[in-house]
Amino acid sequence: MAKKETKKIRIIPLGGLNEIGKNMTVIEYDNDMIIVDCGLGFPDEDLPGVDLVIPDITYLEQNREKLRGIVLTHGHEDHIGAIPYVLRSLRTPVYGTKLTIGIIENKLDEPENELSYIPELVTVCAGDTVKLGVFSVEFIRVNHSIADACCLAISTPIGTVIHSGDFKLDLTPIEGEMMNLTRLGELGNKGVLLLMCESTNAERPGYTPSERKVGQTLENIFVTNKNKRVLIATFSSNVHRVQQIIDISAKCGRKVAITGRSMLNIVGAATELGYMNVPKNILVDINDIKRYNPEQLTIITTGSQGEPMSALSRMAFGEHSQVSLGPSDVVVLSSSPIPGNEKLVGRIINELCRKGVLVMHDSEQVHVSGHACSEELKLMQALTKPKFFMPIHGEYRHLAANKELAVTLGIDESRIFISDIGRVLEVSRTEARFNGTVPAGRVMVDGYGVGDVGSIVLRDRRHLAQDGLLMIVTAIDEMGRVIISGPDVVSRGFVYVKESEHLMEDVRKMAKNIIEKHLYSWDDIDYAHLKSRLKDGISGYLYEQTHRNPMIIPVIL
Amino acid sequence: MAKKETKKIRIIPLGGLNEIGKNMTVIEYDNDMIIVDCGLGFPDEDLPGVDLVIPDITYLEQNREKLRGIVLTHGHEDHIGAIPYVLRSLRTPVYGTKLTIGIIENKLDEPENELSYIPELVTVCAGDTVKLGVFSVEFIRVNHSIADACCLAISTPIGTVIHSGDFKLDLTPIEGEMMNLTRLGELGNKGVLLLMCESTNAERPGYTPSERKVGQTLENIFVTNKNKRVLIATFSSNVHRVQQIIDISAKCGRKVAITGRSMLNIVGAATELGYMNVPKNILVDINDIKRYNPEQLTIITTGSQGEPMSALSRMAFGEHSQVSLGPSDVVVLSSSPIPGNEKLVGRIINELCRKGVLVMHDSEQVHVSGHACSEELKLMQALTKPKFFMPIHGEYRHLAANKELAVTLGIDESRIFISDIGRVLEVSRTEARFNGTVPAGRVMVDGYGVGDVGSIVLRDRRHLAQDGLLMIVTAIDEMGRVIISGPDVVSRGFVYVKESEHLMEDVRKMAKNIIEKHLYSWDDIDYAHLKSRLKDGISGYLYEQTHRNPMIIPVIL
Repeated sequence: MAKKETKKIRIIPLGGLNEIGKNMTVIEYDNDMIIVDCGLGFPDEDLPGVDLVIPDITYLEQNREKLRGIVLTHGHEDHIGAIPYVLRSLRTPVYGTKLTIGIIENKLDEPENELSYIPELVTVCAGDTVKLGVFSVEFIRVNHSIADACCLAISTPIGTVIHSGDFKLDLTPIEGEMMNLTRLGELGNKGVLLLMCESTNAERPGYTPSERKVGQTLENIFVTNKNKRVLIATFSSNVHRVQQIIDISAKCGRKVAITGRSMLNIVGAATELGYMNVPKNILVDINDIKRYNPEQLTIITTGSQGEPMSALSRMAFGEHSQVSLGPSDVVVLSSSPIPGNEKLVGRIINELCRKGVLVMHDSEQVHVSGHACSEELKLMQALTKPKFFMPIHGEYRHLAANKELAVTLGIDESRIFISDIGRVLEVSRTEARFNGTVPAGRVMVDGYGVGDVGSIVLRDRRHLAQDGLLMIVTAIDEMGRVIISGPDVVSRGFVYVKESEHLMEDVRKMAKNIIEKHLYSWDDIDYAHLKSRLKDGISGYLYEQTHRNPMIIPVIL
Repeated sequence: MAKKETKKIRIIPLGGLNEIGKNMTVIEYDNDMIIVDCGLGFPDEDLPGVDLVIPDITYLEQNREKLRGIVLTHGHEDHIGAIPYVLRSLRTPVYGTKLTIGIIENKLDEPENELSYIPELVTVCAGDTVKLGVFSVEFIRVNHSIADACCLAISTPIGTVIHSGDFKLDLTPIEGEMMNLTRLGELGNKGVLLLMCESTNAERPGYTPSERKVGQTLENIFVTNKNKRVLIATFSSNVHRVQQIIDISAKCGRKVAITGRSMLNIVGAATELGYMNVPKNILVDINDIKRYNPEQLTIITTGSQGEPMSALSRMAFGEHSQVSLGPSDVVVLSSSPIPGNEKLVGRIINELCRKGVLVMHDSEQVHVSGHACSEELKLMQALTKPKFFMPIHGEYRHLAANKELAVTLGIDESRIFISDIGRVLEVSRTEARFNGTVPAGRVMVDGYGVGDVGSIVLRDRRHLAQDGLLMIVTAIDEMGRVIISGPDVVSRGFVYVKESEHLMEDVRKMAKNIIEKHLYSWDDIDYAHLKSRLKDGISGYLYEQTHRNPMIIPVIL
């Protein structure tokens, strides 16, 4: 029995299923365990004040002696952003391609991410295989919206597991190779036990266009606006996009200025590591742009998601110290808004229009996705011919759409597994089935605090945001017999107090009555009971008067 | 001079420009004033806890003796929703078509909207003209996503002003006439002084498809899913859409059940007023649906925007008492998400997919817009040939796009005016120019309170939502010499207190030091100074320790 048990691989997603971001998957066999990706997520509006979300790694901490390493598919935050937090509690080697490891090194150099030891960061190339316990992990080139992305073929004692990472097929990539379909096909011919495949664009039909398509559109914009300054906002990590913008600018005889902290960092790192090729003398300092006429200049900036503190946002609202915009500018938002950011992006567009700027955005083909659409996803499946299939990376709708694609390729539904974070899929040579769960969830990062903002804190924040608060503060004598001071009523975020003086006075009187009644009727003062009487009485009264429900906080000294 | 002054019309938007919703425009000539539309807006995420936003009507209150009436273009909330609030302070007649007035009557019947007098609500038909002081207002049929919509031709002593309302051109409307292009052309031939035209879809090229197109798509869905129950979520006010769903269901031999309060209300009102034609015996009570097989039933529901308390949301999350969904259901979201609602709608889609429901949404042509696209907007301008043009209804980007359309038709830029709320455009027979401003803005409605939630309350709510609060409560003796109780430290929404006991203890000690130092060093206790010392000291310390910035509330008894 025990022998049979060890012949199963356990696949445990700790993030990235039924959510966007914080991608992390555990692959376990007997006494060996590896982690694929280690990402963070950005908080929804139901997590007020939270800066970041990272996966719950309780299960890893419980099994730290099994852990052989973390393998990374590419350098996007939703795949590597939790590395600084995870390395604080787990000492384990980290494997990734040059750009991926370069980005992590920069991250770990920031003071708040400093580790108490020197981590083992190992650079690999596409085509390399690393041995981690019983596993051999082969890095295979894919195309994506960041350079040097790979999918992984993980060889285990009972078969090969393929993890797609994030990918698209780009037949005309800007730099480097196209996705290695041949190798995937070879693995497929040898036999793949399980394919885990990303689902981001599974609902979109067809193929994602090549990154080069954006270059063509951008070049047209440069040509038709040759008397204007061109500003392009895009994701800093999309170094191929930035490379294209620099190349087109060079071709058009323009200088290029770069603004935004992350854009400057990435261009620096990517150039140093050889991922970008910046012609000599083309870059000019953002402080020197006044020396150039509009038609001599391209500006590349962050802020394509409408982030309120970004360089583009400051330009739009006239708060950028070097760049002021007007009718001689074209602004290109070379991106598409991440769901939830539509209004932020809209606000920027309005401000730019107001300044007379010509704005080009999503709808004008100035952006392509980095993720495979349905035909590419089907191609991945058709080449690898997996025995079992698990859609990953996406909300339920995306996972379900990816499952449907597999079904159209003839994979039997019984061999497709839509999992969830913390859910264990056990796979043997011949069968796969769900078997139990492990701890999994969201750990909130707020300021320096990791995990100290829990459901009660968040519930209180949401409550406070809705209707504010009202405090009733009273001091009672030591005998618990008379009020010696107060009750005072203090409110914040509830009503405009100056216009609600009589309401506050009513609350004060009511609180006084409740407290005095309590003091008269009890020998020993029961604080919990008194507080709950105050809360109920006053919140009932306020709702009746205002139809609002502020948080009532009684304090008795 | 005085004579010349009276020869100008004043156009004053009080809402609907540089924002979505709360449409309201004042038209003034000498001693007469009318209001076109009286809408509400829905709060952005920067207005936490706010239920609705209505226009600031200070200017109307200051000029109430001039006011001759409110004329309404159609019955959508963003055009009539502020009526109950405005009629509370302004007694003036209200003119609208039958459905519009019917919806307002229902609204005013709700207990919270009760007026202290019987308002004068006047029903007109498309084609009617009403005389209001020096103005004659002609109601002209347009198509829109609600029945009985009109644009307005307002004849003034110095020329005709056209206000488009919300419109589209539907050559094959479901019920009633197509937009009265002929009348608009006649007015254009006679001469139009000013056109105010909506801008919602000005960025979209081409024509908006006919409402009938949706009927065709829906019919296909019924045919291809003839063994399933079909649920369709749509805007309750789109009675033509609801009519089509009922007609198709009748054709397919299905019964129709309706759920959601506003859907039931509207179907009732529209049927009673003759806007809908519901075949006998087709409607079944939602409580009786268990008597029918899936293929015998259509359910029409509210909740197409993902509203958390709506019928559809309750179904998706398994909390609807009559409808439980599964693989034998098709759910059609016959709507497109209003910007900002994408995530709410996405959440519903995920839950439906999880239940095995087949979900059809926006991307599958199950919805058409109610607003004119660029070619229809140009048609409106081309027919009316206005001397002056003012784009209305939209954010700046939409107004600017509508202006560009006018420019392509040859209207000189100097005759196009992008205005703002509160900004006065003066128009004479020969010229138009901006001249000053009047009070305008957003009035928040929160519970029973209208206007008592101002910028300070909202700032506090946003602050509380981010990092919560920390109170320091102390009682001091009457002489202001010694602490007699406390300081106590109470926090909400800041950190999980049980895990931060030492932090709280540090804060308590620090507060104690600050207070005692103050009591020793001052003869007369200066509460304001002490409080500000506490705030600064403690917020500095907390930021250093936690990188968070809770609201600090010192209370001294």
